[in-house]
Amino acid sequence: MTRVRTDLFSSLDGYTSAGGGPENPMGEDWEPLTTAYVATRTIRERVFRDTSGAGTTGVDDAYAAAFFEGVGAEIMGAAMFGLHAFPDDPDWTGWWGEEPPFGFPVYVLTGTAPRPDVEMRGGTTFRFRDAAPEDVLAEASEAAGGLDVRVGGGISTARAFVRAGLVDDLHVAIAPVLLDRGHRVWEDLRGLERTHRMRTDVAESGTIHVTFSR
Amino acid sequence: MTRVRTDLFSSLDGYTSAGGGPENPMGEDWEPLTTAYVATRTIRERVFRDTSGAGTTGVDDAYAAAFFEGVGAEIMGAAMFGLHAFPDDPDWTGWWGEEPPFGFPVYVLTGTAPRPDVEMRGGTTFRFRDAAPEDVLAEASEAAGGLDVRVGGGISTARAFVRAGLVDDLHVAIAPVLLDRGHRVWEDLRGLERTHRMRTDVAESGTIHVTFSR
Repeated sequence: MTRVRTDLFSSLDGYTSAGGGPENPMGEDWEPLTTAYVATRTIRERVFRDTSGAGTTGVDDAYAAAFFEGVGAEIMGAAMFGLHAFPDDPDWTGWWGEEPPFGFPVYVLTGTAPRPDVEMRGGTTFRFRDAAPEDVLAEASEAAGGLDVRVGGGISTARAFVRAGLVDDLHVAIAPVLLDRGHRVWEDLRGLERTHRMRTDVAESGTIHVTFSR
Repeated sequence: MTRVRTDLFSSLDGYTSAGGGPENPMGEDWEPLTTAYVATRTIRERVFRDTSGAGTTGVDDAYAAAFFEGVGAEIMGAAMFGLHAFPDDPDWTGWWGEEPPFGFPVYVLTGTAPRPDVEMRGGTTFRFRDAAPEDVLAEASEAAGGLDVRVGGGISTARAFVRAGLVDDLHVAIAPVLLDRGHRVWEDLRGLERTHRMRTDVAESGTIHVTFSR
């Protein structure tokens, strides 16, 4: 049974990093939000191709491993792919590198005229769509072949799917820092605890993992 | 050694209830923020005079008990006393009832001309001051006689003391609800994790207890 999942990063005061443009797409506050995650063995292996076995293996790593487990398709906004940076370059394949860490179809919500699919090394295909959340989710669910669909972000894309009632599991890794600036992770989600049950785990790093599930 | 402590309530998205005026001074979102706290044995005994032994005795209750332990004086804003409701009535003794749950001197920051002290049943004396945080804290610390000083709120008073670097222990009980409205608990506190160490406990109720200490 396909579930729709979203994983986000937040500061304790509910902010995620505002993007910093092409030179620093995730913004300068991204690093403190993801320090514990980047330190896990799973991320070192899966994203940084470090097969030495280094990295933490506690609660943060369990969440990092679950992030990759059982996903068959992803949906992301244009900014997360990199379309805002080079919107008019038909050869721009985003900022995920030659071998993006997906290995399955990734649906990119363009908000503009569609482009042709891009096939990357390692099984990732970027498919560009200008469609409503429900419609792209239907297509992604079919492509996932019984596995889960991840709504990858950015924050406004993720929130739009949650608000539309399309997300079954919303996991937010809350870093033990106060940013006082950026995009508000929880904006316009009043009452989510009435449709989803909330679970909390505190990691050794101080990260508070909150998951709303239904 | 006197420590300066503050205890606040927040939703997961960082809001506390905006006051609702004289009829409902804490506002309509106060109840979901304090449900778990009001359910503790300590609060039932200390605030509601229920000596039956009813109430929860887990993590929330441990924090509720610590709230009352070792405090010798309190500082609060005018709204928390009730001065905004009846500012011109010299006989108004606030909305804490005939026997307020303090039992020690309470310094009320009026922002207006001072009023005479008011002695209540049970050892509480309200002392009205129009003074800078540092000055009223110096007076409250002396009155506390070696015990701790609590900065009781409301939120803008508490934040002013934290921002001024006057608070040693900031405890925030984060209820597992999303309000998306109210006063922002963490506003203008960027980087507090650099001067204070953060500790987190998750209660049976789902409440996340976060404490910044130095």
